[in-house]
Amino acid sequence: MLGSSTQTLTLFTAVICCCWTQKSPNVPPPNIIIMLMDDMGWGDLGVLGQPSKETPNLDAMAAQGMLLPNFYTANPLCSPSRAALLTGRLPVRNGFYTTNGHARNAYTPQEITGGISKDEILLPQMLRKKGYVNKIVGKWHLGHRPQYLPLENGFDEWFGAPNCHFGPYNSSNRPNIPVYNNSEMVGRYYEEIKIDRKSGESDLTQIYLQEGLDFIVNQTGAQRPFFLYWTPDGTHAPVYASKRFLGKSQRGRYGDAVMELDHSVGQILSRLRTLGIENNTFVFFTSDNGAALTSGPLESGSNGPFLCGKETTFEGGMREPAIAWWPGNIPAGTVSFHVSSVMDLFSTSLSLAGLGPPDDRILDGLDLMPVLLNHPHTRQNTSYIDRPFFFYRGNEMMAVRLGQYKAHYWTWSNSWEEFEKGINFCPGEEVPGVTTHVQTEHTMEPLIFHLGRDPGEKYPISVSSNEYAAVLGRISPFVEEHKRTLVPGMPQLNMCDVAVMNWAPAGCEKLGKCLKIPKSDPQKCDWPH
Amino acid sequence: MLGSSTQTLTLFTAVICCCWTQKSPNVPPPNIIIMLMDDMGWGDLGVLGQPSKETPNLDAMAAQGMLLPNFYTANPLCSPSRAALLTGRLPVRNGFYTTNGHARNAYTPQEITGGISKDEILLPQMLRKKGYVNKIVGKWHLGHRPQYLPLENGFDEWFGAPNCHFGPYNSSNRPNIPVYNNSEMVGRYYEEIKIDRKSGESDLTQIYLQEGLDFIVNQTGAQRPFFLYWTPDGTHAPVYASKRFLGKSQRGRYGDAVMELDHSVGQILSRLRTLGIENNTFVFFTSDNGAALTSGPLESGSNGPFLCGKETTFEGGMREPAIAWWPGNIPAGTVSFHVSSVMDLFSTSLSLAGLGPPDDRILDGLDLMPVLLNHPHTRQNTSYIDRPFFFYRGNEMMAVRLGQYKAHYWTWSNSWEEFEKGINFCPGEEVPGVTTHVQTEHTMEPLIFHLGRDPGEKYPISVSSNEYAAVLGRISPFVEEHKRTLVPGMPQLNMCDVAVMNWAPAGCEKLGKCLKIPKSDPQKCDWPH
Repeated sequence: MLGSSTQTLTLFTAVICCCWTQKSPNVPPPNIIIMLMDDMGWGDLGVLGQPSKETPNLDAMAAQGMLLPNFYTANPLCSPSRAALLTGRLPVRNGFYTTNGHARNAYTPQEITGGISKDEILLPQMLRKKGYVNKIVGKWHLGHRPQYLPLENGFDEWFGAPNCHFGPYNSSNRPNIPVYNNSEMVGRYYEEIKIDRKSGESDLTQIYLQEGLDFIVNQTGAQRPFFLYWTPDGTHAPVYASKRFLGKSQRGRYGDAVMELDHSVGQILSRLRTLGIENNTFVFFTSDNGAALTSGPLESGSNGPFLCGKETTFEGGMREPAIAWWPGNIPAGTVSFHVSSVMDLFSTSLSLAGLGPPDDRILDGLDLMPVLLNHPHTRQNTSYIDRPFFFYRGNEMMAVRLGQYKAHYWTWSNSWEEFEKGINFCPGEEVPGVTTHVQTEHTMEPLIFHLGRDPGEKYPISVSSNEYAAVLGRISPFVEEHKRTLVPGMPQLNMCDVAVMNWAPAGCEKLGKCLKIPKSDPQKCDWPH
Repeated sequence: MLGSSTQTLTLFTAVICCCWTQKSPNVPPPNIIIMLMDDMGWGDLGVLGQPSKETPNLDAMAAQGMLLPNFYTANPLCSPSRAALLTGRLPVRNGFYTTNGHARNAYTPQEITGGISKDEILLPQMLRKKGYVNKIVGKWHLGHRPQYLPLENGFDEWFGAPNCHFGPYNSSNRPNIPVYNNSEMVGRYYEEIKIDRKSGESDLTQIYLQEGLDFIVNQTGAQRPFFLYWTPDGTHAPVYASKRFLGKSQRGRYGDAVMELDHSVGQILSRLRTLGIENNTFVFFTSDNGAALTSGPLESGSNGPFLCGKETTFEGGMREPAIAWWPGNIPAGTVSFHVSSVMDLFSTSLSLAGLGPPDDRILDGLDLMPVLLNHPHTRQNTSYIDRPFFFYRGNEMMAVRLGQYKAHYWTWSNSWEEFEKGINFCPGEEVPGVTTHVQTEHTMEPLIFHLGRDPGEKYPISVSSNEYAAVLGRISPFVEEHKRTLVPGMPQLNMCDVAVMNWAPAGCEKLGKCLKIPKSDPQKCDWPH
């Protein structure tokens, strides 16, 4: 545990060296817990305005730590967002995107042949250098073929699934998704791992909670620093909760799932205190993308006052709930309005571990420690304040945020064809010329919004105003520099093949759960939006 | 001040007698402060999810008291809402509505000939019976002709204006609105009382703060119980703030106004503590209607996740921020999900004062004390739980809420004609068949929403579902009973006349501010929406 004098010293170090514990070789680096929710929206937390105020533990976490209302994911979809978190790089750099069509969202269904590239450096691979034991509990989503799984990519332990819990499937043309314990499957969803589609009942969140707690207790006992990447998916459709929570919220099954996750967060933080390691454990809570509004009122959450949701680069698709918690270090009850993102968690975690960032690649994340420790330095530091944030959809930079301003260079919700089938990423919302159903280019004259006075992106600033000209003048050089220097990674999400599905995952023999692998039939994946 | 044993006794009394201090004749009744904001939206408070978190004092007030996320105003427009608060009755009963057209919003512009009826009993008139000294600081809005002014209707003191601060006017065809100190004007807006339309600068909120503080200090010194009705209007367009606050928020002038009001609330609560009267002063904070979204991003606030805004009977028009604060009595950091309204403040205040309600009329409010004191009793009491709330627009009952369900019997935003001129009460929002531009009747088959899982009123429950049938079966008897027993009051907001405008308010002679009164020309007022 860090004493207060050490804390002062290391705080100073953070500012000078961009590396939080570099100058304190005898102090063990703090444990790191990243809690990443699935499709939970910005507006799902009580402290962020959900009217049913069903997250007392998260609200308390914010009161004991720092709330970051301007925190973003790196992509409005789960797989690329998760790849960005673990690599500290935009999906367009780390390869978690597609070039099948323009500005298409892509992820890792079980037909996908690709996964996280061996050329990428993942956070747990770095942390290992400092003796961290790394575990992921929950959804992985960076590829399900053997070489892409967590234990091949820096994690020491895993309990969870490589893909989403869609299903049930009949096993003939599509297998159910396996759940792994480390390197071998222990069952499949809807078979050994129960999710009742009708009632919404599943004990998975409880299992994920227990897996997380056991890991924390074990590593604390062994006096080894740990990284826990806790990624439960109860708020992703089909939404589930355990019996104790079903029917308990005011807003149906989705709220029940939120209540159970909130309860679990409370259990984890409480266990850190019981173990006496709360002052040496950095915890960050966030979500992988905005609420999936198209899943309807029973299975989707809230993006609060923001426009649209998952799949879009409007605020509702990418602004995320975010709380940093580290008693005795991060000042309690504070709010940071700095623009920051999941990619910063990579650089921040390295800094916490006393590691410098890899020097052979461009990182999109920054070390947030000066911000989180609320150092006065950050209030003037241009690297934190005048920092552009790029909103990508597939291979296209759709928008940029700089300070309070956001400029859209392309707008799209989804196609008319999909929209007319009832697939709606912006239900009840329609901003003319903004929530377009045709991919609309604005690169010559971007739509600009002031997110402070217009968080809902409803009132584009007049292109003939002085404000517009001034803002565009500030944003353009950042965009030009970004485009000039960007070297897109090799796209990993282009090819699909029925033969790569989870027919015969490692461990299936022992369980008698191997299915016959069909003939390979590689095709370009179809990404409709 | 109430000791803790007294508190237990009176808590018990509240449950048995519906009258909080009735059995404690020797305990002075608590002071009452109602803070009523103007056009501030549910989503404007940090604790209710405004992303710029600019209300630290209100957030602290909620943490020290009780938050009521299901609190409503009685009308989506200012005058009727205020009349309802002070009478405890729906506008359709107390006369603050119009029959010029169907379902039209009406208020008290300076052409209005009507005002609050002498047949109504106002809260300060009742409180006088128990020795309360009553002051209103801010906007009145219950009629500006002499007989309708505050000092003729139960208030002992007044500093503020009878109408909105629209203007400036040129004094020939329309006078600027007077500001009164008690029974005489002290100046007019844009003349002696400065509001800079260009910069948005005005010291009015500071003046209202000082008036409130002085009143509190004076009555405390005189050891007299007081009722302060504090109704500043800085968040009503044209929005204003004093120099110290202008430019300080992240969201422009509107946010600056919110910050100044939040600061003022903090000053008032702090003064109560300094005076040692915080345990004997009940404070309630709320707003008169939803944010005026049609005023655009510079001059309007946020209704959080709710649909539309001011002028509509959707949630955005009528759900209000609400905090009850009474240290030592109302338990700190609590949330009550009971459906309640500004009309309850009438009955609740009477109860606090040890008064029973008038027995010669129907009241729409309930005594909230058992709820505010968090008595277990209220969790089962059907008078609190199975309580319908009626949403009126003018002379029409548009919707009803019962528990988590809301049934719309009529829908309307505004006419196509107005909408095409750019007047939009639901900017960026469009729910087909719900946010209609034609008055649409659904009385045979109301649109029903579950506000828990669908606070944004975007997903009407299928009329063929069991849920729909069950809910309608529960709601219908309440609606039938309401309609059967309703005796509408005489409408006070039908007639307008240029001769009644503020040409020559009391006190104008002394100031040389009297204007020539034009010839009387009474006409039906035109209420377009």
